[in-house]
Amino acid sequence: MKRFKLTVAYDGTNYCGWQIQPNGITVEEVLNTHLSELLKEDIHIIGASRTDSGVHAYGNVAVFDSETRIPGEKISYALNQRLPKDIVIQKSEQVADDFHPRYCDTRKTYEYQIYNAEFENPLFSRYSHFVGRPMDIEKMQEAASYIVGEHDFASFCASKGQQKTTVREIYELNICREGNLVKLRIKGNGFLYNMVRIIAGTLMHVGTGLYKPEDVKVIIEAKDRSKAGPTAPAKGLRLIEIEYF
Amino acid sequence: MKRFKLTVAYDGTNYCGWQIQPNGITVEEVLNTHLSELLKEDIHIIGASRTDSGVHAYGNVAVFDSETRIPGEKISYALNQRLPKDIVIQKSEQVADDFHPRYCDTRKTYEYQIYNAEFENPLFSRYSHFVGRPMDIEKMQEAASYIVGEHDFASFCASKGQQKTTVREIYELNICREGNLVKLRIKGNGFLYNMVRIIAGTLMHVGTGLYKPEDVKVIIEAKDRSKAGPTAPAKGLRLIEIEYF
Repeated sequence: MKRFKLTVAYDGTNYCGWQIQPNGITVEEVLNTHLSELLKEDIHIIGASRTDSGVHAYGNVAVFDSETRIPGEKISYALNQRLPKDIVIQKSEQVADDFHPRYCDTRKTYEYQIYNAEFENPLFSRYSHFVGRPMDIEKMQEAASYIVGEHDFASFCASKGQQKTTVREIYELNICREGNLVKLRIKGNGFLYNMVRIIAGTLMHVGTGLYKPEDVKVIIEAKDRSKAGPTAPAKGLRLIEIEYF
Repeated sequence: MKRFKLTVAYDGTNYCGWQIQPNGITVEEVLNTHLSELLKEDIHIIGASRTDSGVHAYGNVAVFDSETRIPGEKISYALNQRLPKDIVIQKSEQVADDFHPRYCDTRKTYEYQIYNAEFENPLFSRYSHFVGRPMDIEKMQEAASYIVGEHDFASFCASKGQQKTTVREIYELNICREGNLVKLRIKGNGFLYNMVRIIAGTLMHVGTGLYKPEDVKVIIEAKDRSKAGPTAPAKGLRLIEIEYF
């Protein structure tokens, strides 16, 4: 038995997220089906990040075990011919038998896109959240500086989270504007349930002036979800990369 | 009777182009329907650019005449509430009664997007054409320098075109790479039928090494469509802006 790692890109619009569930099609289910057909074995992948319904990914990671003789790096080509167009394997490779995508030291990078203009732009609405009021990027950058570092992010965790600790370390949180598109790029050693979307919703409130940048410091210290901003919509979020150490 | 100008953005994926036709829904038809309902008059818009099936736009222009008392700049808000999400009016305004969107001096700007990597990226495939072989951007830029200026672009015109002259002036043709995305931005005083897509298809061939940059000079001089490259797919093209003088 050999273990293989896949780097998976998908447009999450038409999926009920990553993880298999009874009421709707998921990325995990589609990958299991097509891998099982391709390799003529009963394949059950293990995903690194169970992205929510509607969230996109460029570099999610999954592993599976197989007896196949297809070389690891060739699986991507064969699998892509079978997959629907909104899921594309970016890389496939054989890895150590004990490699587990969730129980390793990782750095994850997410990006959240906001389209900030007077009117929506249909060429961006599939992959960004629309904000109609002007946003002050410098104030958002100032607020972001409070988020970088090791903190207890309980204020940025949806109640559904059941982790041992709500302490996480954020290495980078960059905010930039490209025309009407505002991009938040965040890198950390792990993220709580809905954490990136709650950070995005909170920074949107800073951008539009509802919160002051220094309010974010108080929100972190409160360790209370009700003090932070809203959970920004799923479609603006994409998982960019998972790095393993 | 007053004349109004609309600046229209749309995702062309689900439309059979701009112009009304019997077999499929078009942007023109959707605008006529919703404007007529909103203004309670029989409205027939005149479009500046009859974009092809699947082509996108951020700044196409249309005009219509109406007796409405709604101020020109308010029509956008009222109309956007009725339109499907893939068509959004960016601006509405009253203009001179004799303003015609096609019989004026204009500069049009188009953008063509190519996703150039080993594997497709589902987050870009709706708005770009995928090229799997590496592309040399510098060679494409060199080839582009032959296209800028006033030339007879007969080699870059699909047979369907029925214009008096095939001479056009290109003011700018910029090619840049942003990660795996290659963007061609072209500005001119007018474009022949399929001209931007044939230029994009020809420059793609330069990028992948099938043509040399200087071949583009020979292609222009030939005044023969069969000498140029393929018509690049519609989904990579977007009409960015029409400037009136």
